[in-house]
Formats: sequence, C-alpha cells, structure tokens
Amino acid sequence: MASKEKMLQELGQGFVQEYYNQFDNTNRMALGNLYSADAHLTWEGTVFQGREAIGAKLVGMPFSRIKHIITAQDVQPTVDDCVLIMVFGQLQIDDERPMVFHQVFMLKFQNGFWACSNDVFRLGIHNIPT
Amino acid sequence: MASKEKMLQELGQGFVQEYYNQFDNTNRMALGNLYSADAHLTWEGTVFQGREAIGAKLVGMPFSRIKHIITAQDVQPTVDDCVLIMVFGQLQIDDERPMVFHQVFMLKFQNGFWACSNDVFRLGIHNIPT
Repeated sequence: MASKEKMLQELGQGFVQEYYNQFDNTNRMALGNLYSADAHLTWEGTVFQGREAIGAKLVGMPFSRIKHIITAQDVQPTVDDCVLIMVFGQLQIDDERPMVFHQVFMLKFQNGFWACSNDVFRLGIHNIPT
Repeated sequence: MASKEKMLQELGQGFVQEYYNQFDNTNRMALGNLYSADAHLTWEGTVFQGREAIGAKLVGMPFSRIKHIITAQDVQPTVDDCVLIMVFGQLQIDDERPMVFHQVFMLKFQNGFWACSNDVFRLGIHNIPT
C-alpha cells in the first residue's frame, strides 16, 4: 500500500475511534467540533447542515447513556484527497436492546485541519428481510 | 432546496436506479462502465482498484439471478461537487433467502461524464446484535 494511502487509512481509523469514544464516553457536547463549518449530516433521512445544527442535533438526543460497538469499517481515499469511511456496528441506548447502525463519514482537509464534511447515519431497523 | 442541490439529488437517485437495474436485469457485464478509470471498490472488505478490476469482480460473481430491493437511500452533495450516496436494501441471489446489504457510492464529474469514483459494499450478515 502506498504511504499516502496508508496515512489516509490510519487517519480514517483514528477518526472512527475518536468519534465514538467522544460520543460514548467523554464529551458528546463537543462532537460538533469534529465537523467542518458547512458539513452535511443526514440522520435517519433528516438533513442537518452546518457545524452548529449538527452539534445541536447530536447534543439534543434524548438518552443518558449510549454505547457503540464497531463490527466493520472500510476506509477509502477519494480523488479529491478526502477520506471516505463506512462503519457498521451496533449501538445500545440506556438499557434498551442493541440495534444495528450504519454510518458514513467523509473527511476533508480544510483550513489546516481534517474535519468531517459529510455524515450519513441510519439504524438498521427498517431494513429487515420479510 | 437550491437548484444545484436538487440536481445532485436527482443525479444520485438516477444513478442508483440505473446501477441496480443494470445489475439485476439488463447488463451486469457492462457495470464497469459506470466507474471512473481509477475508481475504488471495497467489496466485503476486499479492495479492487480501477475500472477493469471492478468490472471483472462484478461480472465474475457466481450466481445466475440477483434482485436488489432498495429500502432507503440518502444523497448528499460534497464540498468538491461530488455526490455521496448511501443505499440500504435487500438482495436475493437465485432462490436463496434475502440478505440485507449496504452500499455507498461517490459520483464525480470527470472528463465530461459523471462516474462512480468510490464504492463500498457490505452484506449485513456480520452485523447482528447478540
């Protein structure tokens, strides 16, 4: 693997680790700081645009404890030197039954920092074969 | 919604429709043509790079019939004027039991055409809460 590609892989994996650790353990209030100023989040089909709107959405979710477990993650470089990440996992809210989730992030280097410019989140509960 | 954003939404939705229709019904042999020359595909964790390698992977899969059903799709514009698409659905191979799948596409306008530059595919079978 080329060293640039390896660097982007490690960057993607590091972001995933930091994102969910901050979400679950340390500081959900500051998650918005991981996003670029004009980032897009699509959360269960609803669009939030901009760091402030995204941060408010993530802070405002009504639970006291959450735990994410990552079962797989795929990281790809893009032609514009961004990093595309697809995450598969399970999350548990308070004492509820664990649910499957899927999340896509795109990271871009802008103004001297890597930040999340795109985020798509969906629970797997709507996607069950009959 | 701004007209540019609306155009990108329709472009993304049109790509999804064309991709799976071609996959299931018309011409899986030519699916590689929807990818850019240096595209990345990560298929169940294995990386295929370049249109030829991707086309060969898609053509070589060992089944005679496949049917995709899309249960949700989210389309986002990116800061580099690409289109990010996250697809949730079920697929059925021959007469087997339907399986959940998730696929991410990124589309980019290059050399006068929109083409898929990034594709990540995973079945949901590994992501079941215990």
